[in-house]
Formats: sequence, C-alpha cells, structure tokens
Amino acid sequence: MSFEEAAHLLWRGALPSREESATLRKEIAALRALPEEAMRVVRAAADAPPIDALRMACATLSLDLDNPDDISPAADMQAAKMLTARFPTVIAAHARLSAGKQPIAPRADLSHAANFLYMVHGKEPDPIAARAVDTYWVTVMDHGMNASTFAARVIASTRSDMVSAVTGAIGALKGPLHGGAPGPVLDMLKDIKSADRAEAWVRNELKAGRRIMGFGHRVYKVRDPRAAVLSKAADELSSAALENRQLYDLARSVEQTALKVLDEVKPGRNLRTNVEFFTALVLQALGLEPKSFVATFACGRIAGWCAHVIEQHAEDHLIRPQSDYVGPRGLKLKGGSA
Amino acid sequence: MSFEEAAHLLWRGALPSREESATLRKEIAALRALPEEAMRVVRAAADAPPIDALRMACATLSLDLDNPDDISPAADMQAAKMLTARFPTVIAAHARLSAGKQPIAPRADLSHAANFLYMVHGKEPDPIAARAVDTYWVTVMDHGMNASTFAARVIASTRSDMVSAVTGAIGALKGPLHGGAPGPVLDMLKDIKSADRAEAWVRNELKAGRRIMGFGHRVYKVRDPRAAVLSKAADELSSAALENRQLYDLARSVEQTALKVLDEVKPGRNLRTNVEFFTALVLQALGLEPKSFVATFACGRIAGWCAHVIEQHAEDHLIRPQSDYVGPRGLKLKGGSA
Repeated sequence: MSFEEAAHLLWRGALPSREESATLRKEIAALRALPEEAMRVVRAAADAPPIDALRMACATLSLDLDNPDDISPAADMQAAKMLTARFPTVIAAHARLSAGKQPIAPRADLSHAANFLYMVHGKEPDPIAARAVDTYWVTVMDHGMNASTFAARVIASTRSDMVSAVTGAIGALKGPLHGGAPGPVLDMLKDIKSADRAEAWVRNELKAGRRIMGFGHRVYKVRDPRAAVLSKAADELSSAALENRQLYDLARSVEQTALKVLDEVKPGRNLRTNVEFFTALVLQALGLEPKSFVATFACGRIAGWCAHVIEQHAEDHLIRPQSDYVGPRGLKLKGGSA
Repeated sequence: MSFEEAAHLLWRGALPSREESATLRKEIAALRALPEEAMRVVRAAADAPPIDALRMACATLSLDLDNPDDISPAADMQAAKMLTARFPTVIAAHARLSAGKQPIAPRADLSHAANFLYMVHGKEPDPIAARAVDTYWVTVMDHGMNASTFAARVIASTRSDMVSAVTGAIGALKGPLHGGAPGPVLDMLKDIKSADRAEAWVRNELKAGRRIMGFGHRVYKVRDPRAAVLSKAADELSSAALENRQLYDLARSVEQTALKVLDEVKPGRNLRTNVEFFTALVLQALGLEPKSFVATFACGRIAGWCAHVIEQHAEDHLIRPQSDYVGPRGLKLKGGSA
C-alpha cells in the first residue's frame, strides 16, 4: 500500500476506502508548502546537519495553527497531516540549499514520494525510484516503542501538543544509537571495496572491538523483516546504474560474510542484518547524500510518531518514572564558599 | 546559594569555590545575548505562547556551536552554559515583543536573576525582587525524573546532543499536567476574591468534579517542601505593594481552607499545597504575565535538564521500553481498497 494509505491505517485504525485514500492524499498534498518562517530557518541552517534543520523548522510549524495548545482529536489530525506533508519539503529544501542551489516548490499533482524526489532533484522521478521511496517510508513508518516514539509519548503525556512532541522525537532520532547509522554502512562498503576482502575486514573490526554497522538490533534477534523489503527495493533500483548494481552485489556478499563471521566470533548473540543495512543502499541509489539519511528516515517515521501522539492524548496518563538514587551520600564540598 | 552556584553543584557534582563561582557567573553572563537567528524566531513567534517561542528559539541554538553533534563532556558543559544563559533572554525578549515593545539587550554586570528582570522591565530591579527570582529558580532547578527531564534523558540516551534533548524537554514542560498550572492558581484566587468565600468555592469545585489548582502532587503526599521556600519569597515580595499583600494574605487563607476541605472530602488522598501555588504569587508579584509562567519555570529547570543530559551521556544506555499490545487482533477493513 502507499505511504498515504498506511498513514491512514495508523491514524484512523483502519485502511482507507478508495475515496478516503484520495481525500487524504489531496489534503496532504495541499499542505506541503513551507510557511515563510520555516523556510527562513531552513536557510539559516543550510550548513547545519539536515536533522538539526528539521528540528528547527518543525519547532516553528505551530505558527500557522489556529490554536497551538489544542490537543483535541481534530487538532491532532490536522497537525499530523501538516507535519507529514512538510517534512519532505524541509529535507529537500535543505539538501538543495546546503549544495548552494535554490529550493524547489512542491507539486500537488505528484504522490508524496514522487514529489519528494522532484523537490530534491528538480525533475520528475522514474516511477521505480518513487516506488522505492514509498516502500522505504512505509517500511520505517512505525516500529513500536523506539526511543523517538517514546520521547514523543512522554512529551504528549503531559497534554503538550503534537508539534512539541514531534520536535522532541526528531531530537531522539538524531542520536547514533537510534536513527544515526545508515551513513556508516556505505563507509564500510566503500572501505571493503570487493567481496574477497570482506572476511578479513570484518574479523579485523571485531578484533579491534568495533561494531559492524547494519547488524544487530535491540529487539530483533532474527533478520529484520524490513531488511527483506528494502533489499528488494534496492535490487530493483540498482538496475538503473552499473555503479549501484556493483554496490548492491557487494552488499549482499558482505552481508553473507558478516553473518557467518559474527555467528562464529559472537556465538549466541544472534546479530542479524538490520533495517539500516539496505536503507543505505536504497537512499544512496536515489541520489541522496548520506548526511540526509536520518532526516529522510524522519519523513517516514513522522506518520508513526503522530499516531502514537494521537493514542497518548486519548490515554491521558502522565509518563513520569520514579528513580532510585545510587550515588554517594552527602555533598562533596570542594570549595569554601558554602 | 545563588542560581549560578546551584547550577555548578548540579553540573559538576560539587559546590564551587569562590573563584569557580565567579568564573561560572562571568561565563554565563558572557553568553546571554541571542544570536541573530534565535532573535528572528522570537520575533516571528511574538503572538505565540511564550513556551512555544522558547521551543522554537532553543531549537536554533545549536547554530553557533562548533560541532552540533558533539556530546563530549566539554561540549555538554559549553552547551549547558549557553542554554542556561540564553533562556531568560528569550523569555524577556518575547514578553516585550508580545506587548508591542522592543527587546532589551542583556547586561553582563548583573546577576542572572537581576538581569532577567532588567530585560523584562527595562530598569534595574529591587534587590528583593532579584532575590525572589533567584530563589524561585534554585527551588525549581531540578526535581528528579519529572516528565520533561525524562524526555531529555530519553533523547540524550540515543547519544543525541544537548540542544536536541533540551528542546524536547521544553515541549514536555508545556503540558498542563507538568509545567502548566501556575496561571490557573491566580484565576482561582481572583474568582474567590475574599477569604470568607473560600470554603463554599472549594466545596463547589469539588462537587463539580474539578481539581483545586495548586494542591496535590504525583510524588509528594506531604506539603511540597518547595512551597515553604516560595511562600517566604512571596511574603517578602508582597511588602512592596498593598495589592500583592492582599493577594498573599488571601492565598494563605485559601490554602488553610482548601487543605481542610480536601482532607474532609477526599480523605486519605493527602492532597497538599504544591510548588505551583506560591509560584503563581511570586511570579505575579514580579510583574510577569501568567502566560509567561511556564517559560519562566524553564529558565530554572534548564540547569537540571542539562545536568541530567550530562549524566545520561556518561551512562551511554539507550532508553527504549518494550510495549505490550492490548488492542484487538486483526485489521479493521473499513474500505474496499485493500
């Protein structure tokens, strides 16, 4: 199903009818353009990391809401559509500005995914490329109580608004332990260069005590099911350019080698291919810069964040854990002023 | 102790020597001015809630950091000083802009608290007023694992940076279940008008199923110890104006009545005076608008948020809970398009 249909499922709890699907698509398309202040912030952040630019722009996106404190279901739904619509516009504008080019205005006649590539590259994308973006966003749209989603829920649990919750979630996604690893997968592949060098490379990294990027997950102890979907998308995309085909073939080969070596060197750990491994290949083949990968991830995950905020607002339960003090007793009085 | 000394304690784990205290005070004072982009965002947000303006401005405060991804102890300490220094500048500038006045540049020769009142009112404050702000900020600086602090820790736990974590925390503080209640305490006192009307008013509210603002706390089942400190500050401040003295006397009387009625109507619930009750009186007597109360709270709590982020970065442990699915099984297929 398309990104818009999957968003409807998450936000409404049911798949859309054909009519509902068309309506949601039109509503999101109509909200894509950035308000003046958001675009100004993106320009000011042209040299900043894309995920920082997204955090800054998102923080301002309450400015054109009727009531930025409103957390009624209707207000949440409106904010969900608006944020989902504008994230790709922010990322595409920032990608162009950071490359010294001017932003391209969104087009309402294209799908959410096709419009994103259009705004990045300035031309209508190949349908295979648009489908790959769509597949990627649907695949990463939601993933239970990951750190960014949990941050959004903690914020929303105070009865704070959706823009505040999602701005916090962006900050969490930025962290290398959460959204931050797809870039390094490409560095690894470039460093390995050819399939016959993979085994020695992986063994050497493990001997040095380093993690192998793209393997292992906090929850999954089997191959991340999202990896299969994205591997297929990367495979399809790679047909268009010899360079991408070679990188894809190398990746598949490195994957097999890494899994074999990881099982041998770290038995029982069940380190399997995760979503980041093939994400890197898909996004690279789409002509996106590695520094934009995490922010592009956010364009998919935003739909899940919004669904969780909607659910949290309906629960009306403050998330406020207790903590145990485990430090020393008594103040250390270093100076004499107290 | 002063706000700056207490911040040193939280950030370094020890009280400062006289020399360390003077150094920190100078360092924070030197960082008070807002970069151009932050001030531009505050201007654009002149009609937005102050806490939203703070979220937007804070999100941009990574722009003049050397490396916005750096979470080393040195980078965290620098970010902590910078954010702590600039929050009052944001709030004061926004308060003036939203009243149609121009912002006033910070002065490095004043204490953190005195400078805040100077930037709000345009004149050097009475020492009692400056001391009240200082007392208020020290009192609310940290409070364990409250929702905003926890949001900051969840974000920082991904190894995301301090600006991202604190921006998320602001969003959580905005929520009425967390930072959002000091304004309504004043509404209550204005509605009660005189001490002899208090008992009937409180009984009527409870009968209607409403909460009494300023009473009850998620953690405290005794009188919030911060209430005693702030009651004293409010008492001192109220000497300056008859109107404030009358409001303070009314508040003390309403407090006694409310405690008596709450114990009678909700026995065993131990609903006691919380920090918000006297916060409202202190901030009102300082000439701040109720809509600014939550954002002024953030100017104190920022020191605690930063301390927690520093600690979380040292722990290097991802906060990512599991969740149990308790909804229905199977998709509800409303439409026919799937």
